[in-house]
Amino acid sequence: MMEKEAEEKGQDQEQEQEQVVNPWQVSAKSGGKIDYDKLIDQFGCQRLDQSLIDRVERLTSRPPHVFLRRGVFFAHRDFNDILDAYEKGDKFYLYTGRGPSSEALHLGHLIPFMFTKYLQDAFKVPLVIQLTDDEKCMWKNMSVEESHRLAWENAKDIIACGFDVTRTFIFSDFDYMGGNFYKNIVKVAKCVTYNKVVGIFGFTGEDHIGKVFFPPVQAVPSFPSTFPHLFTGRDHLRCLIPCAIDQDPYFRMTRDVAPRIGYLKPALIESSFFPALQGENGKMSASDPNSAIYVTDSAKAIKNKINKYAFSGGQDSIEKHRELGANLEVDIPVKYLSFFLDDDAELEHIKKEYGAGRMLTGEVKQRLIDVLTELVERHRRARAAVTDEMVAAFMAVRPLPNMFN
Amino acid sequence: MMEKEAEEKGQDQEQEQEQVVNPWQVSAKSGGKIDYDKLIDQFGCQRLDQSLIDRVERLTSRPPHVFLRRGVFFAHRDFNDILDAYEKGDKFYLYTGRGPSSEALHLGHLIPFMFTKYLQDAFKVPLVIQLTDDEKCMWKNMSVEESHRLAWENAKDIIACGFDVTRTFIFSDFDYMGGNFYKNIVKVAKCVTYNKVVGIFGFTGEDHIGKVFFPPVQAVPSFPSTFPHLFTGRDHLRCLIPCAIDQDPYFRMTRDVAPRIGYLKPALIESSFFPALQGENGKMSASDPNSAIYVTDSAKAIKNKINKYAFSGGQDSIEKHRELGANLEVDIPVKYLSFFLDDDAELEHIKKEYGAGRMLTGEVKQRLIDVLTELVERHRRARAAVTDEMVAAFMAVRPLPNMFN
Repeated sequence: MMEKEAEEKGQDQEQEQEQVVNPWQVSAKSGGKIDYDKLIDQFGCQRLDQSLIDRVERLTSRPPHVFLRRGVFFAHRDFNDILDAYEKGDKFYLYTGRGPSSEALHLGHLIPFMFTKYLQDAFKVPLVIQLTDDEKCMWKNMSVEESHRLAWENAKDIIACGFDVTRTFIFSDFDYMGGNFYKNIVKVAKCVTYNKVVGIFGFTGEDHIGKVFFPPVQAVPSFPSTFPHLFTGRDHLRCLIPCAIDQDPYFRMTRDVAPRIGYLKPALIESSFFPALQGENGKMSASDPNSAIYVTDSAKAIKNKINKYAFSGGQDSIEKHRELGANLEVDIPVKYLSFFLDDDAELEHIKKEYGAGRMLTGEVKQRLIDVLTELVERHRRARAAVTDEMVAAFMAVRPLPNMFN
Repeated sequence: MMEKEAEEKGQDQEQEQEQVVNPWQVSAKSGGKIDYDKLIDQFGCQRLDQSLIDRVERLTSRPPHVFLRRGVFFAHRDFNDILDAYEKGDKFYLYTGRGPSSEALHLGHLIPFMFTKYLQDAFKVPLVIQLTDDEKCMWKNMSVEESHRLAWENAKDIIACGFDVTRTFIFSDFDYMGGNFYKNIVKVAKCVTYNKVVGIFGFTGEDHIGKVFFPPVQAVPSFPSTFPHLFTGRDHLRCLIPCAIDQDPYFRMTRDVAPRIGYLKPALIESSFFPALQGENGKMSASDPNSAIYVTDSAKAIKNKINKYAFSGGQDSIEKHRELGANLEVDIPVKYLSFFLDDDAELEHIKKEYGAGRMLTGEVKQRLIDVLTELVERHRRARAAVTDEMVAAFMAVRPLPNMFN
């Protein structure tokens, strides 16, 4: 779940002129940028404004994450309620996930996990991570066994983001299905008609019934009773879901159903999409390896991809560039730096100098190459240290006695 | 599953003039009898002919069950293949089930279980019994908890039919969901489009998605890999499903999908419906307690129901009856005796004498009262002896090392 490829189009959905954002398709209007203001309107979520970010800073006594400061996470649903409750001493739990569709993750896949790790550390709360191996095997031409194997492999990349095993439960749908998880799925499924999922997700009659049924599977980790080994007796524990905004349809459905089955609505904090190297008209595509930086890319590959493919807002000639400066609105190196360069002052400096034409594309790209090479190298080292025993430990169905401390 | 109430109509399906038989509705054409020949044609199954019954007798070295001799089980799919394989020394396993929709079972509910017990004893094969508590909670206005509780209670009635705990695994969907069961469900669901289930089951857009997804849940116990604790290494073990013919749509779907996922098609042996006391135009109705004999009815209640409600083919006056004799085609006491009076000679005698007017309705009813009172009393005693520990033993996920001996 949570992070899908732009090329995965909803079956039989025509490529429309209007922007389309759902869990299987992200495409901007006529090749332009995604209009996030319109998305907020259309989905009915709220903009994450500065006052909320200030509140997070105050409540956690640490600087807000770069993804908050830079507006990567830009929308929410009831995040203010989570903070209200937290302020009164009520904890919550985090829920995020991933559809294990590929062996290697790209930088876009890491974003929700990097942010979720920050939230876990800052608020000191438990976290559940769903690996929707059932979904991926149903949507892709992939066997149950292969999908299940990828879930395990992807768990290593997730663990490498630094999650705390004393507060984190990672589960594969195939492994964890049953018990309260299934009971909650049935409770939700009873409340959602076929017409409703067609309206939300755009399924057609030729879609298989596994797809039709999947939305409740992604819905119910929003409810603490899905995890009796963690949350027995805490039926009113709130849930906060950090995710990319293309997952919003699942949780609109979830929030619609929750009060009808006596459960609290989950809150959401939602990110924009991480753009492809070629430009900001969607997300990165798993089918084109040159559209993304993978966490398995070598330093040489990173350098080559950025130099060769990263869309530049710089001018065609040095003379023109010195005169007009770079168009920062479309420049991918600057965009990528705004995700991954933590130093606000340095980023401002680059934007100012580059925008004024005093800094050249090659220099900005070099800075990005340095930043990403270090990030990827750090991830690779962390992942190499993740053993099968560690994965098993994160995925064990077990109580987490100190998860709120 | 397996035994449904006639009054449970498919949503939004119009009451048609034509006969309708599906898992939720059984109604004859314009109030007449179900046309079973037509059903065989329509469903594409085969008639269970005398040569097959003779073969069963020869292979099992015991008289065929009364339900075989009398044509209660009258249709099949590939039952001959099961017998071919058995003759060569290959065993099979049995799969039947029940949707736990009510506290007390009626006689119609017992029929598949009485017959399945005979098959288990005669062929010495393992048996899995699915309690579709998930289905019932989704179709009825019933909570997950209540449906799950009814599954446990109904298991006691099923065990009271005399199943062998060393060859029998009973499971509730809520309890057993997960593992290979869920993996097989996903494999099947991938192969069935929404349009397909609409065609088979008549779902509409206003049906909830739990219903749309349920057919694979009932399908996959047909596959030995759904039960790794029983059948690991026996992927080519055949499955025989004794059930009422209204369940055929589930297994048409199952048989259609099986080869596409590398599994064997299950074989079926299918029964007609046990008629209501009021006459043979459908099945008994749970909503009218006077339409059926329950296994919880007292001797007095049985006597009263039969005398008061059992539709008689006898004539209006004794004089007319002596002259014309009873119409055996519509007579419910004779019909019920043909299900439950094991003595062929006595049944023939009753039919001859009653049909000729020499025996009166009251006498036939009295014989039926005796037979059913004994049957129900025996069931009540057997059920009273079933403890929660016995239910737990049947439902334990365990190997059955002697299940084929």
